[in-house]
Amino acid sequence: MDKWDGNEGTSAFHMPEWMIQFADQKQEFNKRPTKIGRRSLSRSISQSSTDSYSSAASYTDSSDDETSPRDKQQKNSKGSSDFCVKNIKQAEFGRREIEIAEQEMPALMALRKRAQGEKPLAGAKIVGCTHITAQTAVLMETLGALGAQCRWAACNIYSTLNEVAAALAESGFPVFAWKGESEDDFWWCIDRCVNVEGWQPNMILDDGGDLTHWIYKKYPNMFKKIKGIVEESVTGVHRLYQLSKAGKLCVPAMNVNDSVTKQKFDNLYCCRESILDGLKRTTDMMFGGKQVVVCGYGEVGKGCCAALKAMGSIVYVTEIDPICALQACMDGFRLVKLNEVIRQVDIVITCTGNKNVVTREHLDRMKNSCIVCNMGHSNTEIDVASLRTPELTWERVRSQVDHVIWPDGKRIVLLAEGRLLNLSCSTVPTFVLSITATTQALALIELYNAPEGRYKQDVYLLPKKMDEYVASLHLPTFDAHLTELTDEQAKYLGLNKNGPFKPNYYRY
Amino acid sequence: MDKWDGNEGTSAFHMPEWMIQFADQKQEFNKRPTKIGRRSLSRSISQSSTDSYSSAASYTDSSDDETSPRDKQQKNSKGSSDFCVKNIKQAEFGRREIEIAEQEMPALMALRKRAQGEKPLAGAKIVGCTHITAQTAVLMETLGALGAQCRWAACNIYSTLNEVAAALAESGFPVFAWKGESEDDFWWCIDRCVNVEGWQPNMILDDGGDLTHWIYKKYPNMFKKIKGIVEESVTGVHRLYQLSKAGKLCVPAMNVNDSVTKQKFDNLYCCRESILDGLKRTTDMMFGGKQVVVCGYGEVGKGCCAALKAMGSIVYVTEIDPICALQACMDGFRLVKLNEVIRQVDIVITCTGNKNVVTREHLDRMKNSCIVCNMGHSNTEIDVASLRTPELTWERVRSQVDHVIWPDGKRIVLLAEGRLLNLSCSTVPTFVLSITATTQALALIELYNAPEGRYKQDVYLLPKKMDEYVASLHLPTFDAHLTELTDEQAKYLGLNKNGPFKPNYYRY
Amino acid sequence: MDKWDGNEGTSAFHMPEWMIQFADQKQEFNKRPTKIGRRSLSRSISQSSTDSYSSAASYTDSSDDETSPRDKQQKNSKGSSDFCVKNIKQAEFGRREIEIAEQEMPALMALRKRAQGEKPLAGAKIVGCTHITAQTAVLMETLGALGAQCRWAACNIYSTLNEVAAALAESGFPVFAWKGESEDDFWWCIDRCVNVEGWQPNMILDDGGDLTHWIYKKYPNMFKKIKGIVEESVTGVHRLYQLSKAGKLCVPAMNVNDSVTKQKFDNLYCCRESILDGLKRTTDMMFGGKQVVVCGYGEVGKGCCAALKAMGSIVYVTEIDPICALQACMDGFRLVKLNEVIRQVDIVITCTGNKNVVTREHLDRMKNSCIVCNMGHSNTEIDVASLRTPELTWERVRSQVDHVIWPDGKRIVLLAEGRLLNLSCSTVPTFVLSITATTQALALIELYNAPEGRYKQDVYLLPKKMDEYVASLHLPTFDAHLTELTDEQAKYLGLNKNGPFKPNYYRY
Amino acid sequence: MDKWDGNEGTSAFHMPEWMIQFADQKQEFNKRPTKIGRRSLSRSISQSSTDSYSSAASYTDSSDDETSPRDKQQKNSKGSSDFCVKNIKQAEFGRREIEIAEQEMPALMALRKRAQGEKPLAGAKIVGCTHITAQTAVLMETLGALGAQCRWAACNIYSTLNEVAAALAESGFPVFAWKGESEDDFWWCIDRCVNVEGWQPNMILDDGGDLTHWIYKKYPNMFKKIKGIVEESVTGVHRLYQLSKAGKLCVPAMNVNDSVTKQKFDNLYCCRESILDGLKRTTDMMFGGKQVVVCGYGEVGKGCCAALKAMGSIVYVTEIDPICALQACMDGFRLVKLNEVIRQVDIVITCTGNKNVVTREHLDRMKNSCIVCNMGHSNTEIDVASLRTPELTWERVRSQVDHVIWPDGKRIVLLAEGRLLNLSCSTVPTFVLSITATTQALALIELYNAPEGRYKQDVYLLPKKMDEYVASLHLPTFDAHLTELTDEQAKYLGLNKNGPFKPNYYRY
Repeated sequence: MDKWDGNEGTSAFHMPEWMIQFADQKQEFNKRPTKIGRRSLSRSISQSSTDSYSSAASYTDSSDDETSPRDKQQKNSKGSSDFCVKNIKQAEFGRREIEIAEQEMPALMALRKRAQGEKPLAGAKIVGCTHITAQTAVLMETLGALGAQCRWAACNIYSTLNEVAAALAESGFPVFAWKGESEDDFWWCIDRCVNVEGWQPNMILDDGGDLTHWIYKKYPNMFKKIKGIVEESVTGVHRLYQLSKAGKLCVPAMNVNDSVTKQKFDNLYCCRESILDGLKRTTDMMFGGKQVVVCGYGEVGKGCCAALKAMGSIVYVTEIDPICALQACMDGFRLVKLNEVIRQVDIVITCTGNKNVVTREHLDRMKNSCIVCNMGHSNTEIDVASLRTPELTWERVRSQVDHVIWPDGKRIVLLAEGRLLNLSCSTVPTFVLSITATTQALALIELYNAPEGRYKQDVYLLPKKMDEYVASLHLPTFDAHLTELTDEQAKYLGLNKNGPFKPNYYRY
Repeated sequence: MDKWDGNEGTSAFHMPEWMIQFADQKQEFNKRPTKIGRRSLSRSISQSSTDSYSSAASYTDSSDDETSPRDKQQKNSKGSSDFCVKNIKQAEFGRREIEIAEQEMPALMALRKRAQGEKPLAGAKIVGCTHITAQTAVLMETLGALGAQCRWAACNIYSTLNEVAAALAESGFPVFAWKGESEDDFWWCIDRCVNVEGWQPNMILDDGGDLTHWIYKKYPNMFKKIKGIVEESVTGVHRLYQLSKAGKLCVPAMNVNDSVTKQKFDNLYCCRESILDGLKRTTDMMFGGKQVVVCGYGEVGKGCCAALKAMGSIVYVTEIDPICALQACMDGFRLVKLNEVIRQVDIVITCTGNKNVVTREHLDRMKNSCIVCNMGHSNTEIDVASLRTPELTWERVRSQVDHVIWPDGKRIVLLAEGRLLNLSCSTVPTFVLSITATTQALALIELYNAPEGRYKQDVYLLPKKMDEYVASLHLPTFDAHLTELTDEQAKYLGLNKNGPFKPNYYRY
Repeated sequence: MDKWDGNEGTSAFHMPEWMIQFADQKQEFNKRPTKIGRRSLSRSISQSSTDSYSSAASYTDSSDDETSPRDKQQKNSKGSSDFCVKNIKQAEFGRREIEIAEQEMPALMALRKRAQGEKPLAGAKIVGCTHITAQTAVLMETLGALGAQCRWAACNIYSTLNEVAAALAESGFPVFAWKGESEDDFWWCIDRCVNVEGWQPNMILDDGGDLTHWIYKKYPNMFKKIKGIVEESVTGVHRLYQLSKAGKLCVPAMNVNDSVTKQKFDNLYCCRESILDGLKRTTDMMFGGKQVVVCGYGEVGKGCCAALKAMGSIVYVTEIDPICALQACMDGFRLVKLNEVIRQVDIVITCTGNKNVVTREHLDRMKNSCIVCNMGHSNTEIDVASLRTPELTWERVRSQVDHVIWPDGKRIVLLAEGRLLNLSCSTVPTFVLSITATTQALALIELYNAPEGRYKQDVYLLPKKMDEYVASLHLPTFDAHLTELTDEQAKYLGLNKNGPFKPNYYRY
Repeated sequence: MDKWDGNEGTSAFHMPEWMIQFADQKQEFNKRPTKIGRRSLSRSISQSSTDSYSSAASYTDSSDDETSPRDKQQKNSKGSSDFCVKNIKQAEFGRREIEIAEQEMPALMALRKRAQGEKPLAGAKIVGCTHITAQTAVLMETLGALGAQCRWAACNIYSTLNEVAAALAESGFPVFAWKGESEDDFWWCIDRCVNVEGWQPNMILDDGGDLTHWIYKKYPNMFKKIKGIVEESVTGVHRLYQLSKAGKLCVPAMNVNDSVTKQKFDNLYCCRESILDGLKRTTDMMFGGKQVVVCGYGEVGKGCCAALKAMGSIVYVTEIDPICALQACMDGFRLVKLNEVIRQVDIVITCTGNKNVVTREHLDRMKNSCIVCNMGHSNTEIDVASLRTPELTWERVRSQVDHVIWPDGKRIVLLAEGRLLNLSCSTVPTFVLSITATTQALALIELYNAPEGRYKQDVYLLPKKMDEYVASLHLPTFDAHLTELTDEQAKYLGLNKNGPFKPNYYRY
């Protein structure tokens, strides 16, 4: 049976009552194809969990405190010690950060209000592993407001905001996370979320797959009670598809990474802005008149190209996919092979998700002062390893900026050592985080409330209707007024007035 | 089984040998979901077949010839009379038109060359029903060069270029079509293509579904020998899904309308240009500073908005779908309800596919000289019927331009009487037609050569790999140079070096 | 004394009372420098007066009437025969055209209303020589409403709209003009405007300089009573500067061609739209992905480049001026020499005002199907003469479109035979004509009312304040709301609250 | 006599031999009108000299050294002690900074090379007062290479880069400047540059007018030997026009602030980028979908509007000048009064040069989280003083970011306390500084070498030809290839092949 058939299916989907405008609608859900690749996953700690994360600064100074949180005895004001954070006394500062974030995450606040009566997560016991930031705190406290109990660890050893963690601990959330965990700390924290007496989680919210991996490895029996996994990252989703393909996925999982709204914001809209921001903050360069080559014309590449073109750069594109290539042509970019322009460009940007797109040979041919950076995936796109040779001199000229110097004096400006420019040298706007968090919350609600049999042991995309719901919750930010179908129009189009409004294959 | 699973399926797909770069690749194909709506289809002749089609002008004057082609005795220079056209003597002029079109359709010419040896359509007996233009002639002669026999009728009673029809007849194609057919002529021509002694078609190429409808109605047994239907239009595709849903589709059908390449060109890229062209040709207006409301932010709406914004108009958008609405916001357009801006805008453009988007009430509130036009679907979007009331005066000020005058002197400028502006008042570039024609040719080749069982009695989308192939054939026009994956990269990505390069759900 | 000193001068300028918002303001005026060049002007009839002018179609059919208007005896309904038009009976049709134009020229209508009481042109006897169109008619009748008497001839032998001329004659204007005048007719008409018993003109409104030339040549004494000349065209302005330089200009002249508002609209804003329109109407081409070279990055070139870039073309620029060249770079265009890209481009557009920018050598090297057109000046930019050689075949494929065919079959698509694309293959929006006409009216009022000594026998630019006034009269079209300075702010800036708001050297 | 007459004048201007491409050309120069305003200048130290300047960070840590440089005894390696800097030992670090800047200022380096033989500044004794940065160092050393002797002070008490000052001192330049001067230090440093035995300056290079002011006040007799003043800032230029108007200017002065190239880069092109940069660095906001009002549509406003529109913001414009207002309309922006949109916008940006454009009343009506910033002039545009009232709470949330909190909890986000966002929260690209520095160098050469009588005691704009020369020196950065006129074309246009290419009134 075709999972994409949308409304035609037989299994009924009932939106919770509190999603007023989405009542009386049938829906069948889709699993995402399991094909992507065969990248190795053998590692004890995921790469994403060690990425540095520049925007995650600590607000208050606690650098003099060298004691490991694991060795401290801390209690919150209610007397609980079921948490492990840097310093519980930073709670007040963290609370203010959370309150500011609340103002910028109206969708979650609306969700709290709408679902208040029904408590759609009553009985849910969620174990979570994400970045610990003010925005995540708003998500966590929203889950709490909807009835869930939560235990939380960090998905990255550097990204925790200690003050926010303290505020969460103070208000009663068992949080185990601090900035600068060791690898052992990392797994210890996760374990403390999972394995505690009197606690049997029934939902997983993961970002990177490390939490899921830990439970698989240490407590496989725990899955008997788990209703589902919500996974947000490319890497984690990939792991889940691998499990599914291998027949080892034993609960339903929801891939929220590929929902329309999240994809467009994380990639197209966010990168359109962060490419400019990342380049400016690191190099103070002027964009006008610069020649730029963008490798890859997917959503990220489209965003980068549009922004740079608008700022007066002359942009070339490389592509492997003829359809994306034709799009680049129609959008006004010369489609070239990298070799054709490598000698003349001022900036090289990779957005492919591929490896070794920029090779040492390319680097050797670039002109003096050429800037090289990666907006794509992980740190594989630029062959940075090839630059670690004796004849080249590295000079750190600023945070995240290296000059690699050739014997003849030529300097290449390498940003973030080839890691993601937008994560390393720019910040992610709260609005984008709000979309992600809302999507996660809705996915948890859906999986937790889904009737027996709606989801099998497979990986699913967020139902389109919920994707639309996430979008609708964010429209008020723009004072945007949606038009409603009349009965006559809905009938003419064969649509429910509350959506979903598009077939599953719609491309947006 | 999930039809979208792409490469994971078991049924092998072998691209013909002559598609060199697509060798050794597995592929499974997809059918498009059958849900769209319940619009009535009861009519004796399809609406699309009577749409006026402004760009289809007759080049040579034959207006004095009043004799019906059906009453004429004509032979081509080889003595054949198996055709029915306006005037076989116009063949030479038509041939020149075809030659010019050939220059602008390099993809089909490349196909002729590549597939010359193999003759992938050898044995194919294709009955076709499309617009008869120079571009279609290039398609038809390409099918011939690939080994097919063809018989052809027009899908529209006005759109035939008589000179081109004559040229096709002269070179041996049994063509039955002329500009200005009656309804009876229309069906007679179709019947003459289908029902002739010694001819049993095994492939159908349809544009609007009238040919398919005729065979269903008159010669249902003929389907036993038919290997498949290729349908190009929204209307025809909708009919096929209806048939499929009702269990009455008795051969595989390929929906080429929804292929990526065609969609983007027919909608986004083409409308981005034709909205400007259509408005200029009809009204000579200046775009700068004008306030415009665009109803609907799908591909067509996106194209219209981008073009008008670039020309200095201030654009408002209306939407029913929150995801498209959020896109409009992020692209810099105020999202409003039509009522909020109807009094202030200079131009109203509909791109919804819906009906009665612009009502009489809206029209009553528009300001003097407001221009109203439709870029969406059919002629339903503007409630033109509501303007046919005694108190309003219609004044035809130019071809395709009416002033509708209110009792107080207010004039509304209605373009093309609410029919499609881009078809009525603009032209479709040959490049777009080339993409469509190439897609049709490949779909015919695929259906004709598919091994038993690959396609069932259902409606399928063009395999992604062929979509990519169509795109790749059009890249040379832009002197665009595609990058090839290295073996190492292909392995890393888990992709075949020749594609397909994206999962089926990829949104482009 | 520095003419650019603005408010610092001593000679007072009093705006008429009816320009309410410009009261109590001092202003001194500027003459434009006389340097431009040394182009020859020796000819009996100006080139601009024979340019074909496609947008000026005749609305009613009078093609069967072969009698010369000079041989006809016609009277209007009031019994006057002091005019010479094609057919006075076409007056009613022409009147409707004028009424429609009135709706689109709110600035002139506002001027009529505001100046009604004061009649600032009472006593003015204006002889005019311009295109005779509905828009000019609105200007003429505005001058009448402001108190002037007028006599009028056409500045171009093809551009007269006979119906409009008839309507003007019917309402009492002595008009001498028809479509298709001979050269002898042309000068006869002008003479009939100038030299009639009981009429001594005191103001000249010219477009191209032919009227001024005629009076210089035939009735030099007439200048004793003439208060000034208002000239609109580049050519006419050039002639005036030549006269001034030679010390032969015997009355003040106002160059309205170089007023800010007119320049920006005639060049930047208008060409931004007409380049697209002209190319579409002639070739139906698609802009997306096309490679275009634009020769010249002045206002016209800037408009063309911006429009084509926005439509997805890849645009190269050639320039001789390093400042404009640097602007092109910063706006995102590759600055090249024509030879560098001539083999690869799909379109060549000239916007230089120069001659032989595109030479036969360039044309020889263009690729097949390359489109060549001129948006610049006159018909000198493309060396069309070099294509009139025996080895090349010309084929007229459409109105204004020639294929020039090389011996090897290569075709170059030449538009409008190298004449101005925007005049030949596009139309000028009424809004632009409204700005020009308003500027002309204000210049006439200024020269006619200027106190003795404000203007010498020299060429002047329109006072900036009047330029601003023209702009302000056109803002209501866009529902645009201007901010007014507070007294405190005006004092801070050292400005009068009613303007002028910028120093004379301000570049906008 | 009209100063704008360009080539028609009689006084010959001979470009130095080494400006090869500008040979044999006549040129007469222009003085800029003296009208601008009547702003008070009564102050002991100019405001610009105390502006904080965020981009001017100190590279090496010398914060522990509390001794005033005036109290130190320092010698450079050649034994000279004719300088006063923070720490001569930082010279090496500063030298590297200068070398990096040299790479990004190819125009000055080209100038060194071209003028090497001729030494056009041989004998020049320049006293300078500018920001002391690596870029200024490149300028100073260029002046030295051209033959000049220099003494230099800082024009701003915060902006000196101590390492650069040390490097200059080390290489023999008498520099008197350090970061964090007191007001007394400031004037002391200036005095040490002017008043030293055996030194009589004959040229002044000033930025802000403080140096000029000092000499006027203290050493008026010194002007007898001074050949001219080159002034770069708006403020300094204004002071000069005031002096000129008052008849007190006793040497020629060149206003380089209003040269075309500098203006476009300082305002349009630079602000187009820095508005985005400044907003991102301070607020991490997302631009897409945001409603923004930009007050003022001059060059700065045009740059801001273009950038924000391109990033998907919805932009409104306010204007007082109807011509700029009409430009805003044609560029696609709604022209409003601030009051009409103040309740709905997310960002308010001032670019007017006016005062109190944003009043307390406006601030009271803004919505929560509205961002307010100034890109215009000084710190007058936003009435920040009105926010210093007891009922409002100020909260510093980041460097340069204040939350002003209303009693009801509403927060306004005020950037840089209303000072210039682009100076305070962004950086100026080296390329822009290169244009300024080159313009200064050429102005010095021109004034120093001008024959007696070419310049009177007045304020002049840079000759257009030199403006063009500055532009041409910067084209190689973009690999831009200028086209040269043929002899025939130059004759046709009446232009010299080497320029100047435009009349003085040309608007670009």
